[in-house]
Amino acid sequence: MKTNLPLDADRLWADVMALAEITDPSRPYTRRSFTSLFLEGRAWLARRFADAGLVTRIDVAGNLIGRLEGSNPALGVIAIGSHSDTVPSGGRFDGIAGVATGLEIVRAMRDAGVRPRHSIEIIDFLAEEPSEYGLSCVGSRGITGSLDGKMLDLAEPGGEKLRDALRRVGGDPDRLDQARRDDILAFLELHIEQGIVLESRSLDVGIVTSIVGVRRIEVVFQGEADHAGTTPMALRHDALVAAANTVASVRRIADQLSTEGSDYFVATVGVLTVDPSASNIVPGRSRLIIDARTTKPALMRRFEEAIDGESAAHASAARVTRASFATLSDGQPMVCDPNLRAALRQGARDQGLRETDLPSGAGHDAVFMSRICPSAMVFVPCRAGKSHSPEEWADRDAIATGAAVIYQAVKALDQSLTRNA
Amino acid sequence: MKTNLPLDADRLWADVMALAEITDPSRPYTRRSFTSLFLEGRAWLARRFADAGLVTRIDVAGNLIGRLEGSNPALGVIAIGSHSDTVPSGGRFDGIAGVATGLEIVRAMRDAGVRPRHSIEIIDFLAEEPSEYGLSCVGSRGITGSLDGKMLDLAEPGGEKLRDALRRVGGDPDRLDQARRDDILAFLELHIEQGIVLESRSLDVGIVTSIVGVRRIEVVFQGEADHAGTTPMALRHDALVAAANTVASVRRIADQLSTEGSDYFVATVGVLTVDPSASNIVPGRSRLIIDARTTKPALMRRFEEAIDGESAAHASAARVTRASFATLSDGQPMVCDPNLRAALRQGARDQGLRETDLPSGAGHDAVFMSRICPSAMVFVPCRAGKSHSPEEWADRDAIATGAAVIYQAVKALDQSLTRNA
Repeated sequence: MKTNLPLDADRLWADVMALAEITDPSRPYTRRSFTSLFLEGRAWLARRFADAGLVTRIDVAGNLIGRLEGSNPALGVIAIGSHSDTVPSGGRFDGIAGVATGLEIVRAMRDAGVRPRHSIEIIDFLAEEPSEYGLSCVGSRGITGSLDGKMLDLAEPGGEKLRDALRRVGGDPDRLDQARRDDILAFLELHIEQGIVLESRSLDVGIVTSIVGVRRIEVVFQGEADHAGTTPMALRHDALVAAANTVASVRRIADQLSTEGSDYFVATVGVLTVDPSASNIVPGRSRLIIDARTTKPALMRRFEEAIDGESAAHASAARVTRASFATLSDGQPMVCDPNLRAALRQGARDQGLRETDLPSGAGHDAVFMSRICPSAMVFVPCRAGKSHSPEEWADRDAIATGAAVIYQAVKALDQSLTRNA
Repeated sequence: MKTNLPLDADRLWADVMALAEITDPSRPYTRRSFTSLFLEGRAWLARRFADAGLVTRIDVAGNLIGRLEGSNPALGVIAIGSHSDTVPSGGRFDGIAGVATGLEIVRAMRDAGVRPRHSIEIIDFLAEEPSEYGLSCVGSRGITGSLDGKMLDLAEPGGEKLRDALRRVGGDPDRLDQARRDDILAFLELHIEQGIVLESRSLDVGIVTSIVGVRRIEVVFQGEADHAGTTPMALRHDALVAAANTVASVRRIADQLSTEGSDYFVATVGVLTVDPSASNIVPGRSRLIIDARTTKPALMRRFEEAIDGESAAHASAARVTRASFATLSDGQPMVCDPNLRAALRQGARDQGLRETDLPSGAGHDAVFMSRICPSAMVFVPCRAGKSHSPEEWADRDAIATGAAVIYQAVKALDQSLTRNA
């Protein structure tokens, strides 16, 4: 671990810790998007942005943006960012480490007397985590022109529509057609790995090669809810039997695809419900959600084909109907920009850090940003790979080291990047 | 179908229909035990008991009992009954048909000028269906000395203990030691079949040979709740995978045991939960409840042994812990009394009815009553075997025919039964 970092590790760490304290006290570390706690966190962030000399604003997509004007603003923008919202009971580092990194980089530049040619923007994207409105990456969708009217009509259980929630946090759903940016030349994001590769190999940073595409498939089996005592085995239409066999198929197929080659593939059934869910009633209905992720679209096609066939066969064997086999969402894999990756790798090597290339199994705002500009990410180690839980932890030096890699890359890119290059 | 029945089919039907109307209007036909609706139904029943000349009371176990004094009360009691509480959204006939049958039988005796030697008691057992307190057959447990202090300490989600609920409906939890009866010589219960044997074979009545023993086994798998995107397949501890494979094992073993011989065997997983139940989190915990039923204890032993072994193997294969494999309840099969069965069979044959012997796959109050006296049951056909649902249906004549079989048996038993015979 290098100690002569080009930025202030303690100052960066203090920001992460301070924001973590703005949490629902009954379930740390929770700061759900659109809540008053979230707005409290953003107010704190906006003050820190201003203290660092940034001009801050909320864009029409509800993103909090702090801007350091470059010496030649016409060159365009280098953006750094992540998100300040959290999952329930998680999120001490997930998101905020990336926002705080951006903030520390502009402070470090100022301290070093560096005036960048490009303008630098620090972006706290709105609602990266799946929110009560059923959508993730709201802000990065918006700023890249990917937030449509149908999404804005999504409502949380209480009935509030996303468009009204967006207005409530300072966005403008009626002007979203103006949200898409064309002046950003590069986007860089630091994030905790949320996995155990870096820790287990004692590496300092991971340079992300690509981010998986995530497909969510809902499968519903409809049988008949019969008395568990009086319905002979041969006369049953048990929806759970079909669902359980489908869970086993998902696992078997995923195991196979994940070991076939070097491409990343995982698939999970994380949600499975049974109706009516009584011990003495044969399940009449069962619903499951498959979450499949890969860096290689061909593997996703093969997975879907296999699980389509097997789940249909399981329905037939259990004498139930497969009432639904529907793709709920389908994100394409995103390949990180080679030029930005090279700049990050160089930044790591210049500082003598141990780095590796690795894919990201989780989605990030960078996926959407790649639709409008070259984008790349740096992962820093987190303890035992734990994330989305109160135990989520990344060391002070780990975050500072990752931030230093981005700092060096930004300095290099500020020299090399040209608009419409 | 005979039409010259010894009782009034319309009067019996009117009682069943009238009580069904005392329902939660938003989910017919619901009259959950211990609720104000349940007490309203009982008040109605008590008036009907009184109108029929019965002396009515609530015993210390909370059972509503109407008594017709015999000409020689020292001979003891012939009891007829079932229950007036229902499952949620079911129960238009389940239970109440048996109570109304008892009531109609004493009215028919009175109309025919028959004065029985034995006293006849019509019993509406308290809370036969599993209630919010987590226990079934509360009243028949109580009247047979099978309701203990631990059961009385069970609480519903709101915190009320069963002992307090029992007091609320007129029972006396402090005097339960006096609940067990020793003066009942025979117990007869009419119930809808809740299966499709009688309907599919166009039979009038079923004479129940035995009632299955029900064993409930809880299995809990404990794994690790990891990120569904960043946790490679090979590093997962997925509790749902073990649970799903266990569901498949339950089905396979039950299919096998049920087709091996003539003994009845069924097994069901009706409840399966997943924690934390998010599409992007590998399940850290999964719990399922197995409901296994058989008329033959040896099959239950073989089932439990097999599923114990297979579920442990599934845990090991998924690299999770089987945190629990626990028997929640274990009821022994109950064999119906041969003497009472003969009386019922004779009653059916005397009236030219098509009858058959058949096992009961569902538990009933008769299971507990058999602990204190010879007990037997008559099943009547129900449409498509549907039960515990709003579609539950038995024809007017089907119920009256079954009631007539019990009427004839009671008359014969009144002549033949002697105390301590």
